[in-house]
Amino acid sequence: MKTMSKIPHRLYLTEEQMPKQWYNLRADMKEQPDPMINPGTMQPVQAEDLYPVFCEKLVQQEMDAVTRYIDIPEEVLEMYKIYRPSPLVRAYNLEKALNTPARIYYKFEGNNTSGSHKLNSAIAQAYYAKEQGLDGLTTETGAGQWGTALSEACAYFGIPLTVYMVKVSVEQKPYRKAIMETFGSSVIASPSDTTNVGRAMLNDDPSTGGSLGCAISEAVEKATTTPNHRYVLGSVLNQVVLHQSIIGLETKIAMDLLGEYPDIVIGCAGGGSNLAGLIAPYMRDKLTGKFETRIVAVEPASCPSFTRGKYAYDFCDVGRSTPMAKMYTLGSDFKPSANHAGGLRYHGMSPILSKLYHDGFMEAVSVEQTKVFEAATLFAKVETILPAPESAHAIRVAVDEALKCKETGKAKTIIFGLTGTGYFDMSAYTSYINGAMTDYIPTDEDLQRSFSTLPKVPEIM
Amino acid sequence: MKTMSKIPHRLYLTEEQMPKQWYNLRADMKEQPDPMINPGTMQPVQAEDLYPVFCEKLVQQEMDAVTRYIDIPEEVLEMYKIYRPSPLVRAYNLEKALNTPARIYYKFEGNNTSGSHKLNSAIAQAYYAKEQGLDGLTTETGAGQWGTALSEACAYFGIPLTVYMVKVSVEQKPYRKAIMETFGSSVIASPSDTTNVGRAMLNDDPSTGGSLGCAISEAVEKATTTPNHRYVLGSVLNQVVLHQSIIGLETKIAMDLLGEYPDIVIGCAGGGSNLAGLIAPYMRDKLTGKFETRIVAVEPASCPSFTRGKYAYDFCDVGRSTPMAKMYTLGSDFKPSANHAGGLRYHGMSPILSKLYHDGFMEAVSVEQTKVFEAATLFAKVETILPAPESAHAIRVAVDEALKCKETGKAKTIIFGLTGTGYFDMSAYTSYINGAMTDYIPTDEDLQRSFSTLPKVPEIM
Repeated sequence: MKTMSKIPHRLYLTEEQMPKQWYNLRADMKEQPDPMINPGTMQPVQAEDLYPVFCEKLVQQEMDAVTRYIDIPEEVLEMYKIYRPSPLVRAYNLEKALNTPARIYYKFEGNNTSGSHKLNSAIAQAYYAKEQGLDGLTTETGAGQWGTALSEACAYFGIPLTVYMVKVSVEQKPYRKAIMETFGSSVIASPSDTTNVGRAMLNDDPSTGGSLGCAISEAVEKATTTPNHRYVLGSVLNQVVLHQSIIGLETKIAMDLLGEYPDIVIGCAGGGSNLAGLIAPYMRDKLTGKFETRIVAVEPASCPSFTRGKYAYDFCDVGRSTPMAKMYTLGSDFKPSANHAGGLRYHGMSPILSKLYHDGFMEAVSVEQTKVFEAATLFAKVETILPAPESAHAIRVAVDEALKCKETGKAKTIIFGLTGTGYFDMSAYTSYINGAMTDYIPTDEDLQRSFSTLPKVPEIM
Repeated sequence: MKTMSKIPHRLYLTEEQMPKQWYNLRADMKEQPDPMINPGTMQPVQAEDLYPVFCEKLVQQEMDAVTRYIDIPEEVLEMYKIYRPSPLVRAYNLEKALNTPARIYYKFEGNNTSGSHKLNSAIAQAYYAKEQGLDGLTTETGAGQWGTALSEACAYFGIPLTVYMVKVSVEQKPYRKAIMETFGSSVIASPSDTTNVGRAMLNDDPSTGGSLGCAISEAVEKATTTPNHRYVLGSVLNQVVLHQSIIGLETKIAMDLLGEYPDIVIGCAGGGSNLAGLIAPYMRDKLTGKFETRIVAVEPASCPSFTRGKYAYDFCDVGRSTPMAKMYTLGSDFKPSANHAGGLRYHGMSPILSKLYHDGFMEAVSVEQTKVFEAATLFAKVETILPAPESAHAIRVAVDEALKCKETGKAKTIIFGLTGTGYFDMSAYTSYINGAMTDYIPTDEDLQRSFSTLPKVPEIM
């Protein structure tokens, strides 16, 4: 392999070097994740069950555990080229600040208006919606990253989009709403009077601030009751994991050019889509016995699905309107404390990642948020990127691993995913700087309470 | 010249291709800008007059009209490499949306945490301060772009920084303050009780929201009354124009690689530093008779210093504490209407650009803000970058020129500067989307009133 003589700060692949296919991790998994279950029939979900909700092509991708590489449509590649290939950055300044022999790299996915990796899947989903001739899409958004990304993608492909945004988020983050509207989306504070579930919620409690669960339910209801509309989701699903493989594939090509193979790959994990995307080609090497590398998922101590959750069937939403998935979960009723600043608040985890974790192919650690913001602030100062709090979970563990290298004197190669920027998270930074940020770890009793809501699913396989 | 076969969406130079020197436009100007004048002596400013206020190296750069190329210090290059070379983007999607035969390019300077080109000069100024062994710097910031950039640079070089931020901006943009504090800066709402001028201001009117003029005066007073401190400024000055030449030099190298020479170069103009930087190598070609190209400055109709200002000596600040510069000015008392959303609010213009404009080397147009936001919104949708309102002035005119090409059928090559991102300007976008944004053009009487404050300066040259 021809390698570069000097490693630049930022390596951008050329358009020609960009991957033309997504990689489907399931094709190399000897043991497959358990299938989703239709809660009505308690039988494995069939494609036909999903067609009323999702685009056909996306349903096919969701169910496809066989095709190893799937062509990225030309139109999707064209839009990717506006912000991709994303840079692989050698964190020279962070290394210097830590005085570590480790070589630290990060793949930066925040160089687009939506500010995060979510755009990678949003583009694919909007494209397939257009290809199918749909008249519109619906989705929900909490903090707003996914809604922003999908708004961008829908503006590009000319698909009308309705975003149900949790009411309390609309009030706390009016600028997130403004960006989505700039892209032409219709943003509705949830609960709203536009759906049965929303009206019922408002009837119960007119002053409610809403919840992600309710917003999902409204978006699904709206999609399935409006002619020629479908619903889209930004994480957890197999299709999203597939689209996000672009992150890892680019990373691997760039690292190969540098003659580097990571000893440790680190990513933050909420629903798991960014982590699954980043690690995809390295997990492939592990699954196929080609190379061994440590793969580490980082989650908040306040929402520890991998490290303290159960591997069990659960609903994907709080409203229990979705199929059930076998995954690491805290129970769909689990809500992290309000003092938890960042994202990564989801109660469950991608079924693909859950299976890989369960089978010992990866590790997981949980970190407390003040430690996360400490790392984020250091990183911002030396690398001049203000990280999203979510991304900063990965920074925290990368820093910890680099500091271990300092102790041991071993020059390990560490790579982590920097999923996005923190421009809309300044209130959390302010709270950290002012010393007002505290940590929160759920008690065992908290978890027992939410575990008790797990659905009973008969052994079906 | 070897050119690339297919033009990519984004062209990133390699680190090796990056310019290692700044270009000093004055070295190729046959007629020099008139010198700054010391208002005390009414004589041309000498380096000695400036040493108490600015770093020595920066004063030398300020006065140097002779040295054509100035080495960028190794340490500055190292920090540049964290976010540079910045991409030259072919706006394929904008071209398609406009259905124009024009080839549109933009140089994007927003890929860093500060979100704008201001960082290019901030790094240089912080570096020279460190080299001189200073104990700290002071500056002022209005909207916060400059303060953020300088905070980043000072964090990197370990220089304590005090930022006087206009009090009303602190209140309107708390997150800007938070970013600066994340980088470790001390942010003081101006007027403050930390300076004589601030205390006097508060004494007069305890409820004042402050002004940029007062913030400048406080920052200068603080720097000159604190041992081993200096003051730094982010635009207008010759030294800043010099540092920003990196934008144009990179652009020219990239355009040469593509085999392209622009027919039109467009930049927004507030104090002029971004525009001067972008056009530098193309203006060099004009000044040396090598190539002809149209160079267009774009300013807001609400603050039209080029198009309706006077070419005269004026103070650089509202507080009249600085030397006087010969420039296009609206009078230092001029303030654009409060309904003016974007930046570009400065009453004057870089003396270098003023001279070049006066001598016919460039054009200027003014545009109204609703038209600017119309272009910004279109651009955000198709190019997936949310532009700063300042940058969007250049987009507006690039779009207008591309539409002219559509009429004439001529495939002109247009390049414009995209100076930054609009993440902190969402309230302006909201106002535009809600139809609440209006235009404002000062009347001739408004301008006569502010012209009447111009200082009387004897003919000295």
